[in-house]
Amino acid sequence: MIEEPKHMEEKGTARLEAFSDGVFAIAITLLILETKVPGSEELKHTSLPQYLFDQWPKYFAFVFSFLVLGIYWTNHHYLFKLYKRTDHWFNLLNVFFLMTISFLPFPSAVFGEYVHEPEQFAASVRFYSLGIALPAFVWLLSWLYASHNKRIIDTKLSNTFIRHLTRQFIISNIIYVSAIVLSFSYPRTSLVLIILLTLLYLLPSKKPQYD
Amino acid sequence: MIEEPKHMEEKGTARLEAFSDGVFAIAITLLILETKVPGSEELKHTSLPQYLFDQWPKYFAFVFSFLVLGIYWTNHHYLFKLYKRTDHWFNLLNVFFLMTISFLPFPSAVFGEYVHEPEQFAASVRFYSLGIALPAFVWLLSWLYASHNKRIIDTKLSNTFIRHLTRQFIISNIIYVSAIVLSFSYPRTSLVLIILLTLLYLLPSKKPQYD
Amino acid sequence: MIEEPKHMEEKGTARLEAFSDGVFAIAITLLILETKVPGSEELKHTSLPQYLFDQWPKYFAFVFSFLVLGIYWTNHHYLFKLYKRTDHWFNLLNVFFLMTISFLPFPSAVFGEYVHEPEQFAASVRFYSLGIALPAFVWLLSWLYASHNKRIIDTKLSNTFIRHLTRQFIISNIIYVSAIVLSFSYPRTSLVLIILLTLLYLLPSKKPQYD
Amino acid sequence: MIEEPKHMEEKGTARLEAFSDGVFAIAITLLILETKVPGSEELKHTSLPQYLFDQWPKYFAFVFSFLVLGIYWTNHHYLFKLYKRTDHWFNLLNVFFLMTISFLPFPSAVFGEYVHEPEQFAASVRFYSLGIALPAFVWLLSWLYASHNKRIIDTKLSNTFIRHLTRQFIISNIIYVSAIVLSFSYPRTSLVLIILLTLLYLLPSKKPQYD
Repeated sequence: MIEEPKHMEEKGTARLEAFSDGVFAIAITLLILETKVPGSEELKHTSLPQYLFDQWPKYFAFVFSFLVLGIYWTNHHYLFKLYKRTDHWFNLLNVFFLMTISFLPFPSAVFGEYVHEPEQFAASVRFYSLGIALPAFVWLLSWLYASHNKRIIDTKLSNTFIRHLTRQFIISNIIYVSAIVLSFSYPRTSLVLIILLTLLYLLPSKKPQYD
Repeated sequence: MIEEPKHMEEKGTARLEAFSDGVFAIAITLLILETKVPGSEELKHTSLPQYLFDQWPKYFAFVFSFLVLGIYWTNHHYLFKLYKRTDHWFNLLNVFFLMTISFLPFPSAVFGEYVHEPEQFAASVRFYSLGIALPAFVWLLSWLYASHNKRIIDTKLSNTFIRHLTRQFIISNIIYVSAIVLSFSYPRTSLVLIILLTLLYLLPSKKPQYD
Repeated sequence: MIEEPKHMEEKGTARLEAFSDGVFAIAITLLILETKVPGSEELKHTSLPQYLFDQWPKYFAFVFSFLVLGIYWTNHHYLFKLYKRTDHWFNLLNVFFLMTISFLPFPSAVFGEYVHEPEQFAASVRFYSLGIALPAFVWLLSWLYASHNKRIIDTKLSNTFIRHLTRQFIISNIIYVSAIVLSFSYPRTSLVLIILLTLLYLLPSKKPQYD
Repeated sequence: MIEEPKHMEEKGTARLEAFSDGVFAIAITLLILETKVPGSEELKHTSLPQYLFDQWPKYFAFVFSFLVLGIYWTNHHYLFKLYKRTDHWFNLLNVFFLMTISFLPFPSAVFGEYVHEPEQFAASVRFYSLGIALPAFVWLLSWLYASHNKRIIDTKLSNTFIRHLTRQFIISNIIYVSAIVLSFSYPRTSLVLIILLTLLYLLPSKKPQYD
């Protein structure tokens, strides 16, 4: 006879969330490592205050990526409150999501290093847009998987609310892809687009609605 | 009919605190990464013990920044005990606070690298003072927001106690700003000021008072 | 008289799991640090987009190592659900397991740096295989220790199920060792072998069976 | 009237332990960062396998420091089970303890870099011994403070057991200081001493005894 002990049912999301929080906290704190202390070589032709001031693109990348990761962290919690439990494939999708989250410091660093060099501006904006678009894309996939899976999503959520979120995530992805495409001809517009979308996400999320 | 399930009310501060703890733990542990192992090049003109001894400015920066972050961590918990719950804008302020916390390793590293070079002394003290002042400033903003928001602050706290904290945080900010300004002419005084204020914060915090 | 207070019995695995989760989260997030932002030197003979494209071996190593660590994390939880409690030597084995987990970023970085250089291909595959085999080996040791220890393993598990896991872990180790040996003559086959085994582990684990 | 709400009493050690675990997990995982991937320069005079083999002093430093930190982590939990609550000065001592823990990766890296160079052997052993002795010293201070403080230590512990631990921690400190002093003339003996003491600590700790 097969006996199902209590702990077999603990398919809750607590552990997954704790692990994700860890990855978020680390990725967000690693961002500053890309801003380097000048060596004596760098200070031969410039003063220390001037050097520190000239690092503004790195500070900008730091602040912006910190906000992006902070927003993803907030929304990760927001979304996980709508899930009742998790399954194997959803866990896997979450691993891919965390992969894109911990990848972000790299495009962020490339952006911070090259955004102020005119000939690299377009490429650095494109790579950064790609870095920000990747989590949004896996996020959408996770949501589509979860929202169609009655074992994961809280079934008491109203269909209107679910459709609202689906629409929102699709539109975000379209904007990010547009930013990547636009960056070939209008990198400045790309950058503005991404910044505006991020600022929008600083607003409070829609309150979940239940039937 | 809209049904509000239980989990919608969990606006507690537990998760925010756990995430903040993560960022604190990582930022504080990253501090040592700025102290570099000497290459064979560095050891051509000096012995290994001498080199390790000459790193004292980095050890000082490590110890001092560790204390500063440790104090902020302690006080973060102290303050969060006075809060009943959190809201969207308070979360956002906390993200900005964590941003200043994870920025600190950079000015700390600049300070550790240049504090012993006479011509860079003033600039490195100024940048470090700025790095320590930034969290204090966002801290004050958070406190002002929370203490005026009856949904966040524990309403049973006595007004005298709340005013006491407000005064304390404003004074700290004034001291930090003074240190930054003073560093243009009297960098040594700036440094002493910051160290004294930090040592003061090593004393136990005032016990919360309730009406 | 010796009195045994309640907390003496808390030989549960919660803390060990939380600590392990921390190490996993950090190791997995550190992987990206191996992908470096190009300096102006590197961009003299190539454009930024070309350089970023040429980093594909590092992206591959990042994605693959992330999956490997993600799978180990998932299986760590899976296995710990089968344990009722822990003891000193099992804790020690777990410390050795975490040691191999936090070692992995190094062979992963070597692999990402040299896999595309024909004369280093075999050596980089061999070292990476070794890096992936090490946790599998300590994992097997831990399992053998735990599954033969009635104080640790959940005694209600069916013997068939326990034997199934033992067999699975032994086979994995044989495949990893084969990959290391094969890499001397057929490094390409080694790499394929490791990738296939990892993809297999992306499938859901067998449900625990109880008597 | 002053009302003492429930949360004012939560002077438990849970949060302090969670934060300490975070610092431990990060410090232990950062150890591998000191082992560097060779550049094309390093591979001009040696093959990749030979280079990786020649890194054995770094692997040794990695494994040994990992064990040292792992042991401190285990013992931190062991000791905190003997404490009922914490106070301001004990928290502060713990911050200093964590400072020495997160400092350890630096002497470990110096040791791994220079232990195999005959003329640096003594200095690298001495600095490493110092790095390992520092946490032991703050550990002893914390214990002396806590064991004499009836508000912190579990008062039901037998005096014999408390004296046993005090003796053990004092002896460990004497051995570490001896290792540092000996390293001036007999660095090899120093190293053996430290390794033996560490291996001793791999044995299970004495079970707490209660009156």
